[in-house]
Amino acid sequence: MANQTNLQLDHVFHALSDPTRRAIVHRLSRGPASVSELAKPFTMAMPSLLQHLRVLEASRLIRSSKAGRVRTCEMQPSALSIAEGWLAAQRGLWEARLDRMDAYVATLEGKEKKHGKRHGK
Amino acid sequence: MANQTNLQLDHVFHALSDPTRRAIVHRLSRGPASVSELAKPFTMAMPSLLQHLRVLEASRLIRSSKAGRVRTCEMQPSALSIAEGWLAAQRGLWEARLDRMDAYVATLEGKEKKHGKRHGK
Repeated sequence: MANQTNLQLDHVFHALSDPTRRAIVHRLSRGPASVSELAKPFTMAMPSLLQHLRVLEASRLIRSSKAGRVRTCEMQPSALSIAEGWLAAQRGLWEARLDRMDAYVATLEGKEKKHGKRHGK
Repeated sequence: MANQTNLQLDHVFHALSDPTRRAIVHRLSRGPASVSELAKPFTMAMPSLLQHLRVLEASRLIRSSKAGRVRTCEMQPSALSIAEGWLAAQRGLWEARLDRMDAYVATLEGKEKKHGKRHGK
């Protein structure tokens, strides 16, 4: 299960490392869109866009479904949450370390004061 | 400035798309470490590890400095924040959309009730 999450993190972060794919996620965050709507803001050829969509689907950041001739894409926010969760965990570790350092400095300052008093400073 | 951030997001997400690099970030979230300490948990050859460290430094997730023969690496949490900020912004858009949908459904339900009363239902 941990390996599964690790693999999904590989895919999600890889998917998000490209500005076109981030722009697509950004667009889909505001609601579903057809492939042709998604293509509009970009000058790239359709095969390139479809390749980006495939990478996004593989990462499970988006999913798509076809009705007649129209393929509609939509966000899957759970994949975003996995990435957010990982980043928040690292920040948590970092902040815990800063708190420990603060506590340590406060202890040292306390000792310093006591030492100062004992020596009449 | 927006392009600068976009470029950094490319680098940060690319850096995080690899499990070894994520393990290094995870380790450094708990405090600085020398390159040889960082290498310990991995079976890979040193040149491969150094290549991962270069990718992490290019993304500004970590920085390193040399004292004598020892190179020490440490986290740069601001790069993590940039990635977290981008993810949170997309989630914000997504949640705002859900809120709008909720409000719309509530409006429809309100109309339905009024309509029902008027027709003596």
